[in-house]
Amino acid sequence: MKFIEGGVTAAQGYVAAGCHCGIKSSPDVKDLALVFSERPATVAGVFTSNRMASACVLVSRKVVDKGSARAVIANSGCANTCTGAEGLRNAEEMAKATAEKLHISPEEVVVASTGVIGAQLPIVKVCEGIEKLASELSRDGGSDAAQGILTTDTRAKEVAVRLDLSSGPVTIGGMAKGAGMIMPNMATMLAFVTTDAAVDKESLQSALRDAVNRSFNRISIDGDSSTNDMVVVLANGDNANVLTGKDLEAFAAGLAEVCLKLALMIVEDGEGATKLVEIRVSGASDDEDAERVARTIGTSLLFKTALFGEDPNWGRIMMAVGMSGAAVDTGRVDVFLDDLQLVSGGERAGFSEDQARALLAKREIAITVDLGLGNGETRFWTTDLSYDYIKINAEYHT
Amino acid sequence: MKFIEGGVTAAQGYVAAGCHCGIKSSPDVKDLALVFSERPATVAGVFTSNRMASACVLVSRKVVDKGSARAVIANSGCANTCTGAEGLRNAEEMAKATAEKLHISPEEVVVASTGVIGAQLPIVKVCEGIEKLASELSRDGGSDAAQGILTTDTRAKEVAVRLDLSSGPVTIGGMAKGAGMIMPNMATMLAFVTTDAAVDKESLQSALRDAVNRSFNRISIDGDSSTNDMVVVLANGDNANVLTGKDLEAFAAGLAEVCLKLALMIVEDGEGATKLVEIRVSGASDDEDAERVARTIGTSLLFKTALFGEDPNWGRIMMAVGMSGAAVDTGRVDVFLDDLQLVSGGERAGFSEDQARALLAKREIAITVDLGLGNGETRFWTTDLSYDYIKINAEYHT
Repeated sequence: MKFIEGGVTAAQGYVAAGCHCGIKSSPDVKDLALVFSERPATVAGVFTSNRMASACVLVSRKVVDKGSARAVIANSGCANTCTGAEGLRNAEEMAKATAEKLHISPEEVVVASTGVIGAQLPIVKVCEGIEKLASELSRDGGSDAAQGILTTDTRAKEVAVRLDLSSGPVTIGGMAKGAGMIMPNMATMLAFVTTDAAVDKESLQSALRDAVNRSFNRISIDGDSSTNDMVVVLANGDNANVLTGKDLEAFAAGLAEVCLKLALMIVEDGEGATKLVEIRVSGASDDEDAERVARTIGTSLLFKTALFGEDPNWGRIMMAVGMSGAAVDTGRVDVFLDDLQLVSGGERAGFSEDQARALLAKREIAITVDLGLGNGETRFWTTDLSYDYIKINAEYHT
Repeated sequence: MKFIEGGVTAAQGYVAAGCHCGIKSSPDVKDLALVFSERPATVAGVFTSNRMASACVLVSRKVVDKGSARAVIANSGCANTCTGAEGLRNAEEMAKATAEKLHISPEEVVVASTGVIGAQLPIVKVCEGIEKLASELSRDGGSDAAQGILTTDTRAKEVAVRLDLSSGPVTIGGMAKGAGMIMPNMATMLAFVTTDAAVDKESLQSALRDAVNRSFNRISIDGDSSTNDMVVVLANGDNANVLTGKDLEAFAAGLAEVCLKLALMIVEDGEGATKLVEIRVSGASDDEDAERVARTIGTSLLFKTALFGEDPNWGRIMMAVGMSGAAVDTGRVDVFLDDLQLVSGGERAGFSEDQARALLAKREIAITVDLGLGNGETRFWTTDLSYDYIKINAEYHT
């Protein structure tokens, strides 16, 4: 597996474009993105579990259920959530307008929105933007599309990998937006991945679900999950040569790597984040317990504020371990900050406070918790909680 | 039911004292509290579900299991958690020293600690403090005891009520400390309630569990639960006159009121809190769903930062409702800020932004969510999330 330049247009047969259509106030900021597969493509998707799902989620779930898609149309600046029947009509109109310009069926168009909840889409502007984008689609348009889906992200997020499979080379590329706010109203995570591999629908969905579970589902900025989250992958390879066996496994690993890289870009660009923390849990009774522990640490406000303060406050890690609901034997718990042991057998290890503070001053930190009970393990990524998080989310007004 | 002056010594037959024994550095700050029942008392207790439980929790659980107690010894400044065998010996020593001075059994002494995790208790100083407190016990010592259990609380928390039962007058009084940090390491909630009513062990435990479920278990400052939380009630009435029927019900209502008032005092004094918010959920499929919704709103960082910003960002409430896991029909959800309707049938109601901002500028706010599905309901109390929360928890160092 080799990382290469590019994003959603890195794989063969994809073109994209991004523009400002007028949802956001500043004319310099893109707010609409279009990705198009020049060939039919298998589609898989994972959507928010939030029951207040956006109209775009309702529309796109149906596309994924059918199993094939040719295009993704995504806007930023308006979530199209809590918008009732008009919102649903607008999401359908986005698909229809896109399909007309691209000469495909509306049922082949994935629709995504991110931004303010409760506002209606300016659908006329959006449709004008779609017409413009359809005329501008190109292999070079991937970065413009990656710009078009951003909200308070400070930078675009693109990644691509090249795999040399026994059946020939395959490229997987993607773009994402992070847990940023627009205006601000809602943190939404969107990711779109394209590949020129040929993958059958069930294998693609299974590979995506597994990849998401080890990436986007293992990160937290603030513990809130959006009404609009979606991760969608298109695979437009020739179905006469569908991947199987070891090639399929290698593809799944590549997809997981692309998802992980995009997920880490989201955490690193989290609102107000000054640190990226990898939480490694091992020795749990099972993987589910490991995840409980990692997630509880990674979403604890006390842990995240201690990180921001660069304070080696291992008691807050122990508190979170105990609160997680996982099976715990206090006397067996070890905790490490990078390679420095903070806790040994449930009690303070003889570490140097100065050394611990020096490690915490870095931008990237690893916390390892070994429960000493079994073989369950996981990784989870989070950020610190800073004044800027509060500033971004309290001082801006709707 | 009538609110009266006082706290843990408001009821007949209780004396208390508080002092500085030397755990905290400042000699002006109390760090040890003793409460004593002059008569045998039934005891009930509810303890943290955190599996990294403090040594004091292990010791006190046994006392509550036996069902009778005469004293509570509680220190602040050191949690005695993650302290291994030495920590357990120290907790037992606190009970033993208290029992010796009061001529009771160590098995009749509830032990509580709050403060830094991982440090050992200065047990010699604590035992000297216990000797001093035993000689100073008085009806007037309730407020000193309430001071002795505080950490970063900005004020002591005491409440008492008088009930006129058919069998005669009964008093219930209590003290609590809040989710404050010492040094700071750990938010711990402690509450001790005393009554001169005669209540059998099972009824007392049942009444306490119910009261805690409607008070201390319905508040959140930061979503973290401590290793040291405990709520303990002593009832020292003459067991020849044990409460039954309507009198027992009235007692349980009084106990619930005392617990609720103490819980609200804790929220109001939450770290960095500028607002007290009551979240009322109705129309849920059942009470459990109502609680899911209330708790998810009450612990959402996006909701809490919007409150601090006094921003009528109802989309964040809808996001939390959808994320809660409760059964939701988007089109039936109504949301109110005090009496102002923000959301009608899942969409924006026609409210005035200015009026909403004026309501949010108040210190006490009510948010009502009606799911429109069934009869499930609950109440939950929370605070906003301010810069000062981050300051208290990041800038202080261990």
